[in-house]
Amino acid sequence: MTAYAELNTSDLQDRKEKLLYRYRAFQEKSLTLDMTRGKPSPEQLDLSMEMLSGEINQEYRSHSGVDCRNYGGLDGINEAKTLFADYLEVADNEIIVGDSASLKMMHDTIMGGLVYGMVDSDESWGKGGMVKFLCPSPGYDRHFALCQYLGIEMITVAMDDNGPDMDRVEELVATDEAIKGIWCVPKYSNPTGITYSDETVDRLASMKTRAGDFRIFCDNAYAVHHLSDVHDHLKNILTACKEAGNPERVLLFGSTSKISFAGSGIAMMAGSRRNIEFILSKMQFQTIGPNKLNQLRHVLFFETLEGIQTHMQKHAAILKPKFDAVLDVLDRELGDSNIASWSRPNGGYFISIDTLDGCARGVIEMAAAAGVKLTPAGATFPYGKDPKDRNIRIAPSFPSVSDVHKAMELVALCIQLVSIDRLLSNF
Amino acid sequence: MTAYAELNTSDLQDRKEKLLYRYRAFQEKSLTLDMTRGKPSPEQLDLSMEMLSGEINQEYRSHSGVDCRNYGGLDGINEAKTLFADYLEVADNEIIVGDSASLKMMHDTIMGGLVYGMVDSDESWGKGGMVKFLCPSPGYDRHFALCQYLGIEMITVAMDDNGPDMDRVEELVATDEAIKGIWCVPKYSNPTGITYSDETVDRLASMKTRAGDFRIFCDNAYAVHHLSDVHDHLKNILTACKEAGNPERVLLFGSTSKISFAGSGIAMMAGSRRNIEFILSKMQFQTIGPNKLNQLRHVLFFETLEGIQTHMQKHAAILKPKFDAVLDVLDRELGDSNIASWSRPNGGYFISIDTLDGCARGVIEMAAAAGVKLTPAGATFPYGKDPKDRNIRIAPSFPSVSDVHKAMELVALCIQLVSIDRLLSNF
Repeated sequence: MTAYAELNTSDLQDRKEKLLYRYRAFQEKSLTLDMTRGKPSPEQLDLSMEMLSGEINQEYRSHSGVDCRNYGGLDGINEAKTLFADYLEVADNEIIVGDSASLKMMHDTIMGGLVYGMVDSDESWGKGGMVKFLCPSPGYDRHFALCQYLGIEMITVAMDDNGPDMDRVEELVATDEAIKGIWCVPKYSNPTGITYSDETVDRLASMKTRAGDFRIFCDNAYAVHHLSDVHDHLKNILTACKEAGNPERVLLFGSTSKISFAGSGIAMMAGSRRNIEFILSKMQFQTIGPNKLNQLRHVLFFETLEGIQTHMQKHAAILKPKFDAVLDVLDRELGDSNIASWSRPNGGYFISIDTLDGCARGVIEMAAAAGVKLTPAGATFPYGKDPKDRNIRIAPSFPSVSDVHKAMELVALCIQLVSIDRLLSNF
Repeated sequence: MTAYAELNTSDLQDRKEKLLYRYRAFQEKSLTLDMTRGKPSPEQLDLSMEMLSGEINQEYRSHSGVDCRNYGGLDGINEAKTLFADYLEVADNEIIVGDSASLKMMHDTIMGGLVYGMVDSDESWGKGGMVKFLCPSPGYDRHFALCQYLGIEMITVAMDDNGPDMDRVEELVATDEAIKGIWCVPKYSNPTGITYSDETVDRLASMKTRAGDFRIFCDNAYAVHHLSDVHDHLKNILTACKEAGNPERVLLFGSTSKISFAGSGIAMMAGSRRNIEFILSKMQFQTIGPNKLNQLRHVLFFETLEGIQTHMQKHAAILKPKFDAVLDVLDRELGDSNIASWSRPNGGYFISIDTLDGCARGVIEMAAAAGVKLTPAGATFPYGKDPKDRNIRIAPSFPSVSDVHKAMELVALCIQLVSIDRLLSNF
């Protein structure tokens, strides 16, 4: 395939005709495919069905004798704390195991910041006036939406293959006291799939921050979500923060939403003992405790971190062919066209495509018009505004491999068509 | 039994000697009984074990075809909304069914009030300066603790057999704009066991409030928690508020913590459609949804409101003998002594004892010294301070009937001993 930039107007027009012909054929197929969210497929959810079968499920006493049907246990059952402390690479007393939604834990932590501050705050974030968060982008739309609804000002920071642009991050946090946090998905990042380099982790841990109560909201959503035997390695951020003399700086979050059941998993948060004690000292007034039966089920089903890792290989076996399908179609259709680039992640739930500037929204609209719904244009940036209008997040987990093939063929067509119009308008 | 007030010093001293003898016998028994909390007994939790058995538990599709293992469903599955809308006597679209803790829902609603206000607020409660709540007392200690940790000023209002002292409530809310809420446990109230009269409900619904965004936090924790066939009737508060032209005034909360599993039940909140829409418009940024599998289990197990009611008769059969044991001992030991009065509730989880002024703390300490832990003195009042130091909350649900007998015998002894010292000090 020739690079599009080398084609003249009439070549482009010819190609457009052929592509439009194929696009119309797609329209006639009346597809209805949804690739908007990183949602596990039914086959993936089936992997954990044993958790709902009689044997595990009739158990209600934890190893240590707690009746998990009754009240109590603010920070989760001991066995779950041990298992998920291993999972997040923290100590057993540095974790809180909760209900199913880690997003809720992040939200509640920020609400707490606004109303009563952090353990090392001079005053609550809300009292201090404007609160700002750094948002490495493209990133996770729900992180950004959460800031927006709470009136937290978002500052976009670019992402590269090593993580956030650390020069920019260091410069910003060193000078602006209102910057209280940064969002991070440090491993198999949503959506670019990259894993933070050791240097990035060290710089985040050791950088000087103007705000004494600055926090890294580290959403380690894909800690064990490898796609094959090639695993990215993430340096331990809590340890790095402790070594840098900033033990309170990082709060870690995780969940089994993409390990067991997306709607009925286990969420957890972790951090220094001082952070955890502070959060529990507030949490004790908010709830009597999480669903312990669900925690027990998870412990009985997975048993150990190794059990989780073995289980994740089964997920990978289902997911890998879908990611391969995306990459195959993109390679074949857009190979040397120079009108788009895309990620080749070793894990996580997304492939991130960058089109020519100003094309993403058009592509997403065109795909939708032929029955394939993608994540809304701009969603991966603060305020839903992609400054270059070029990022498209592909979420291939839910549809079947053949549906992913079809959908991506359409997406590739749309990228070409919108790019041609863009290039033609430049002549 | 003669009324204590009619006894002279030497009679009182004689009686004290005999009581001390019995008290020392208790001390030698080395009891370790915990009656601090309204916690279901294992026998009660056993009633719902079918929910964890294979048949119900392997089901993961709702009647309407939703895969409850996956993401989605912010306000709960339809079937759960229908069932618990019946339960709270609201319309299907006036309810949000969530995870297990209703206290968390109350907390989150108040945090929301502080950070972004209510649907009809001019500004957030936090922006407006001091926030105050009315606290009918004795009441539920966790409601009060929640206010205290958030810095909400609590104003104590007396409770009588019809509910809060409405003259006082009306006077306060009419004049003070900072009063944004009132806590209510309207049925089988914690701890006095009374149910609000129709007049109280009507007055709460129709009273003039200075704050336009005033809310009744109506914790209907014991809606179907009868102890026998004698049921108290509670007038529908949401309907009353609508009829009074104040549809947004009340927020209802409930849970199955004392119906199914205390640590793994279903919590819910309800209110006018406008309130619910507002809350959902904020909730969508906080979480992707509750544990739907747990909701499905509850729907499959209970099926209908009638199913819940039948189930509650089994709870009553277990609880009633424990309540009877408390009342039998109190009647026998303190019958006509005129040193204490106590409630005889038709439902709920508590019996409330009022001693002579200035005796409750001493009684609770003395009982603890002989191995019976009661709810801490003052817990049923704001800031943990019982102004007359006379209220004792008895929670008989967890121990066995014979343990309740033993514990109450000790409590009655302690009440007599502390009262005698009190009376002697008056001579």
